[in-house]
Amino acid sequence: MSDTKITDLELISENKMFGGLQRVYSHVSTVCNGSMRFAIYLPPAALEGKKVPVLTYLSGLTCTEDNVTVKAGAQRIASELGMIFVAPDTSPRGQNIECEDDSYDFGSAAGFYLDATEEPWAKSYNMYSYITQELQDVISANFDSADMGRQGITGHSMGGHGALTVHLKNPDLFKSCSAFAPICAPMSCPWGEKAFTGYLGSDRDAWKNYDATELVKSASSKATLLIDQGSSDNFLKEQLKPELLDTVCKQFGQSLNLRIQEGYDHSYFFMATFMEDHLRHHFEALKS
Amino acid sequence: MSDTKITDLELISENKMFGGLQRVYSHVSTVCNGSMRFAIYLPPAALEGKKVPVLTYLSGLTCTEDNVTVKAGAQRIASELGMIFVAPDTSPRGQNIECEDDSYDFGSAAGFYLDATEEPWAKSYNMYSYITQELQDVISANFDSADMGRQGITGHSMGGHGALTVHLKNPDLFKSCSAFAPICAPMSCPWGEKAFTGYLGSDRDAWKNYDATELVKSASSKATLLIDQGSSDNFLKEQLKPELLDTVCKQFGQSLNLRIQEGYDHSYFFMATFMEDHLRHHFEALKS
Repeated sequence: MSDTKITDLELISENKMFGGLQRVYSHVSTVCNGSMRFAIYLPPAALEGKKVPVLTYLSGLTCTEDNVTVKAGAQRIASELGMIFVAPDTSPRGQNIECEDDSYDFGSAAGFYLDATEEPWAKSYNMYSYITQELQDVISANFDSADMGRQGITGHSMGGHGALTVHLKNPDLFKSCSAFAPICAPMSCPWGEKAFTGYLGSDRDAWKNYDATELVKSASSKATLLIDQGSSDNFLKEQLKPELLDTVCKQFGQSLNLRIQEGYDHSYFFMATFMEDHLRHHFEALKS
Repeated sequence: MSDTKITDLELISENKMFGGLQRVYSHVSTVCNGSMRFAIYLPPAALEGKKVPVLTYLSGLTCTEDNVTVKAGAQRIASELGMIFVAPDTSPRGQNIECEDDSYDFGSAAGFYLDATEEPWAKSYNMYSYITQELQDVISANFDSADMGRQGITGHSMGGHGALTVHLKNPDLFKSCSAFAPICAPMSCPWGEKAFTGYLGSDRDAWKNYDATELVKSASSKATLLIDQGSSDNFLKEQLKPELLDTVCKQFGQSLNLRIQEGYDHSYFFMATFMEDHLRHHFEALKS
């Protein structure tokens, strides 16, 4: 394939889909101290050598790169619009850390898109640097068609938290942002408190660096954040708390389009329903 | 819900999707001698009490009702067009038959949409009667919005074989038919020979009753069969053999639209790509 330089990338699978190619790769990650996987959809325009925008999707708890790839229907719209759709895994894997596989909400598949400072997590649980630096280098070096100057970021639940925080901290790298049922204020919910304590320690000041509701207060994002949230989501009240983000966005002038979707839950059925809106949101924001 | 009479149906799950409801039910099946599951998508039009056409999707080897429900993206189009989308399981389950779970291509998840005559399969492996009679009764009795006079049938691989044979034997019940990468001539491929020998015995004359390429010779279908087949499908040459069906369709005047899709494989990525075409094919055929 003329569009890829498969040097240190290992191709795990390739399937034609909507005229483009859905691939899964593994590669050696320095920041995550081992092998990492990501899925990438190359639309027909990319295969024809055109420069196209890149949308990175961050998955939620318990997921790998596979869930969104098979369940969300994003490729149809990415094909039509001409966007590369990248879905990384949710944490380092196989670190032989005691208890790393014991909880669904901490350790494996629960990297929370931060750089851990606490041992034994600090040497591998660095998903923030992975998403903002290493994976950037990998995509840039291997996919000529990826327009790294036109990137957006989205995600679901824990990955929605990731998308919001990564964007707010890097508004010039990921110029557009959206989220499905994101954890909006991890410092104020059980999932976030558990993860931040484990990865970052007990100093709550250090947590602010990875909390969207805190970051909005000092962010320089000019983007409109698009958030879809189902009203029947079981995690809405205890874990997700979009109302806290909404309040600070209003207070600090951050543009936010928070849409409460009546009767929808936390599942991929919900996400698939609104995926098209999100891809179009990013595509419009990344035009020119 | 005013549209459902949940009498002997047990609701396993319900998720809102594209304005409609994706549900999974279990129920006691007489012909399959135990509990059976099916998925059903009710589009907004059905929830509003309108009579809408019904498309039944038959899955392939190793699948349950779940695979197509989460992977194929059919609900988006079913929502837009206003069609009920029904996905039954692929075999009886838990029959305590020795070896029933030993092979991926025989026994559990490999019912082949026939009525078995050989023991110990005959008392439960009756997917043909399940699809054409019992599930019909269940849908009709429980979903007022299902227009049982406007039904189509489709499927993938083993389920494509099921769709073709069920339609050819019942062109007035399932008025439209399509298939994704179907087993077109099971009497002439290893999957079919193994299954038919096991379920129907060694008399090959009895097999003709469940072989699309044989059935076309005496069928009274006035429908155009739509078949999509990927050119890079690993099973194409040894198992699927659309060329055999194509030949008899031409010989016996059966209308067939066989589309060889360049570079596509046997996966749900392939199927998702062409699902919209198939739903539109059925919707058009079932108009009026």
